[in-house]
Amino acid sequence: MTEKSTIQFNPIGIIRTPYTENAPYQPIEDDEQEFAIIVDPEFAKGLYELDRFHYLMLFYHIHLIEKEVKMVVEPSWSHGKKVGLFASRSPVRPNPIGLSIVRIKQINDNTIFTTGLDVFDKTPLLDIKPYIKDLDSKEDSNYGWLDDLGDQEHLQLHIKGLPHEY
Amino acid sequence: MTEKSTIQFNPIGIIRTPYTENAPYQPIEDDEQEFAIIVDPEFAKGLYELDRFHYLMLFYHIHLIEKEVKMVVEPSWSHGKKVGLFASRSPVRPNPIGLSIVRIKQINDNTIFTTGLDVFDKTPLLDIKPYIKDLDSKEDSNYGWLDDLGDQEHLQLHIKGLPHEY
Repeated sequence: MTEKSTIQFNPIGIIRTPYTENAPYQPIEDDEQEFAIIVDPEFAKGLYELDRFHYLMLFYHIHLIEKEVKMVVEPSWSHGKKVGLFASRSPVRPNPIGLSIVRIKQINDNTIFTTGLDVFDKTPLLDIKPYIKDLDSKEDSNYGWLDDLGDQEHLQLHIKGLPHEY
Repeated sequence: MTEKSTIQFNPIGIIRTPYTENAPYQPIEDDEQEFAIIVDPEFAKGLYELDRFHYLMLFYHIHLIEKEVKMVVEPSWSHGKKVGLFASRSPVRPNPIGLSIVRIKQINDNTIFTTGLDVFDKTPLLDIKPYIKDLDSKEDSNYGWLDDLGDQEHLQLHIKGLPHEY
């Protein structure tokens, strides 16, 4: 059956960040450092009018993971709680497609500057889509199993990948 | 450079919908019809605790598109306005990765029932991630170039893919 066959994708560009050894779990807004999404020149025209949006959805290949994929995971900050892989945002997945929702700062030719990106430098870019209010922003969304964990404020720092003291 | 090489993904399941010839542009909540995401049995344990979330992010291969990829597109309801492909949600993309944000109704073993899905029947499933409030819901997101178009209410029907008279 064709629908079960292997699917091939080719990167359409590359993502540049300051992170070569460690990266935050989620995008951190950081105006001091440079974060750039560079599409190959042949795709530059595809960025026309993208700068009208506040946010974009960035799809990339999580290319540096070499760990074994497990169906039950224990996020490092979850104090021993185990959840299914697909109920987590672990990067160690059968198909390591990364998604980040990032704020657009400026677009020059084939380069998009953003305020923060949670990926390693030179991550292969797969796709870019506009983040459209109403369609993508769900006011009645929730925190799922994260509600079971205590110390919500501290947890928020972990969820958002913000640097913090402990 | 390894980061520019071809990437291979294998479907982890299949998506079942009532749509075999036409599909809406975006998920329509429809309690009358059945929409199901079926993961292969080897991945069933990865769904543990996913039902605690209201919404999930569904990643799939847009597998039935045979049109030529163009960098500038003219959405059918945009009255002639041209925008870049990456400023649009056109399914005709260099890497046809589909993303839908859908409401979870119920999960039984390896099957997730949802209230609506905007994909063709038997679409190959690539990944599932939980939609986490704050992380994924952006209150200050906007409509981008869609604001240029008149008749906003009517346009909303198109954006959301709802059936309508004209």
